[in-house]
Amino acid sequence: MAQRKGNLMSVRQDIKVLDATIRDGGLCNNFHFTDEFVSDLYRANVRAGVDYMEFGYKASKSMFSEEEFGKWKFCAEEDIRSIVGDNLSDMKISVMADVGRCDFKTDFVKKSESVIDMVRVACYIHQIPAAIEMVEYFHELGYETACNIMAVSQANTEQLMQALDVLAKSSVDVIYLVDSYGSLYPENASELAQKYIAAVEGTGKQIGFHAHNNQNLAFANTIETMSYGLSYMDATMQGIGRGAGNCAIELLVGFLKNPKYNIYHLLKFIEKHMPALKEQGVHWGYDLQYMFTGLLNQHPRTAIEFTNAERKDYSEFYKSLLDTH
Amino acid sequence: MAQRKGNLMSVRQDIKVLDATIRDGGLCNNFHFTDEFVSDLYRANVRAGVDYMEFGYKASKSMFSEEEFGKWKFCAEEDIRSIVGDNLSDMKISVMADVGRCDFKTDFVKKSESVIDMVRVACYIHQIPAAIEMVEYFHELGYETACNIMAVSQANTEQLMQALDVLAKSSVDVIYLVDSYGSLYPENASELAQKYIAAVEGTGKQIGFHAHNNQNLAFANTIETMSYGLSYMDATMQGIGRGAGNCAIELLVGFLKNPKYNIYHLLKFIEKHMPALKEQGVHWGYDLQYMFTGLLNQHPRTAIEFTNAERKDYSEFYKSLLDTH
Repeated sequence: MAQRKGNLMSVRQDIKVLDATIRDGGLCNNFHFTDEFVSDLYRANVRAGVDYMEFGYKASKSMFSEEEFGKWKFCAEEDIRSIVGDNLSDMKISVMADVGRCDFKTDFVKKSESVIDMVRVACYIHQIPAAIEMVEYFHELGYETACNIMAVSQANTEQLMQALDVLAKSSVDVIYLVDSYGSLYPENASELAQKYIAAVEGTGKQIGFHAHNNQNLAFANTIETMSYGLSYMDATMQGIGRGAGNCAIELLVGFLKNPKYNIYHLLKFIEKHMPALKEQGVHWGYDLQYMFTGLLNQHPRTAIEFTNAERKDYSEFYKSLLDTH
Repeated sequence: MAQRKGNLMSVRQDIKVLDATIRDGGLCNNFHFTDEFVSDLYRANVRAGVDYMEFGYKASKSMFSEEEFGKWKFCAEEDIRSIVGDNLSDMKISVMADVGRCDFKTDFVKKSESVIDMVRVACYIHQIPAAIEMVEYFHELGYETACNIMAVSQANTEQLMQALDVLAKSSVDVIYLVDSYGSLYPENASELAQKYIAAVEGTGKQIGFHAHNNQNLAFANTIETMSYGLSYMDATMQGIGRGAGNCAIELLVGFLKNPKYNIYHLLKFIEKHMPALKEQGVHWGYDLQYMFTGLLNQHPRTAIEFTNAERKDYSEFYKSLLDTH
């Protein structure tokens, strides 16, 4: 049996909290956050001791329209600097680059000229070779790099072990276990976490976790996988994120014992901004329709459609999901 | 390290789901449920394969007013029979009796004359001797018995082990680990669960779990403690219960692999009744104020007051909770 790393009274210096509010929350409002929201979030995160703040995607402007999407879909250097200046804080800045949806060879400058610290490459398991090409490119430019293997609950174990083996030999700094469909339970999330840790043993690489809250397990899976040694933990303000959302950063920071973290500044941000966002009609959070797709290990798109249609016939929707083959 | 019992693909016949919707949900509306609600709930539970349905409290009528509280605060035999007849289903019926708030020597008939199957005695740890007196009394009357030791997160380990030792020698059938303040994490809930199991080893007694959702961990703690061998699992429709509420029965039944359970009938009940209850102003469910009391291992009464006052100044409330000594 695997041992937990540390206990409920200990501080683990390897743990990093990454706030993905803009990036994952942007999927709920096409990245149309006000500058005040993003500025306040940056200041709140810095004061709360958050380790990384993700500003959004570096999406291809030839594939995605600047009229449809707000600026954090693209994360231009000057837009980030308009919020953080030269970022004279201890908090690092990350952006996400999707395999196949990012013009990475033209849209990134060298790290020495950038305010971005880390680039996280998101891919499905069949895209691992393409992800590694991007990771090596960003590494050459001088960035910290991460690779987020999405939808791992649908990958077969042999493919996953091969992917981890290749990544362990790459320049990547952090590999993320991503429960895209919110279908993992603490028991199998922890078992998977231990496979990831074993795969990078001796390389100095770290493992991260990105939860989804379909079965109301985002926080639980985050702290359970962390207890077995995962160290880069994604979270967002009040769990904002596509569909059922993510791990709530206030729950995670409340849990952590390192005195560098201070939940109070997160609460000040939340009460100022998050109810207002809900009142504007931005939807996220646990509900039955997301539980169903999580339980059935399916993409949440049908549940998001159910939400947008303001349907409440949960039992009919559940029946329809059983009939997809 | 302890082993888990079974795995995510196995059926454990020892597991019993107890629906506490009326009993714990009654704390949100003073037990003023319509007969239609309770009848539909009974039928939904029977059809869904739920093992026990708890109808409410057997509270003392000299201490509590029948004008203030609905009938499920008192659970008269004839009121239960008006819903279930002679209960010709496989589902058993339980009621709760609080130490010090129940006229147990006058308010119970013999099991042979009752439609009730199980009496659950709820107590704080200093009331264990009184609880055992009641357990032995109900056992003599012919009922199955349980003892729910509340607020275990505030009990010291030595006292708890003594309490479990005495209970292990009593006639009680089931001992419940109760996370009254929602302050346990999967890690320490599982460790506690293993202490309970060790304490009753060889006696044939079972251990149950009753969660609260203050830190959004009710479902996670339920399935984690279950995975280490706990078998009587409390849950309620959409997690209804005082403050942040309980483990949602639809999440629990969705998780369980035993084909006797069928979530569909729960969903039909939920969509008919639960949104209507919320529209009537019945409050429950996870929110920041409950997270704070869970995190700080405090009784939720201040958070319930915060909710009832419709306050939204979370950060001020959090500060006030830090200043209670």
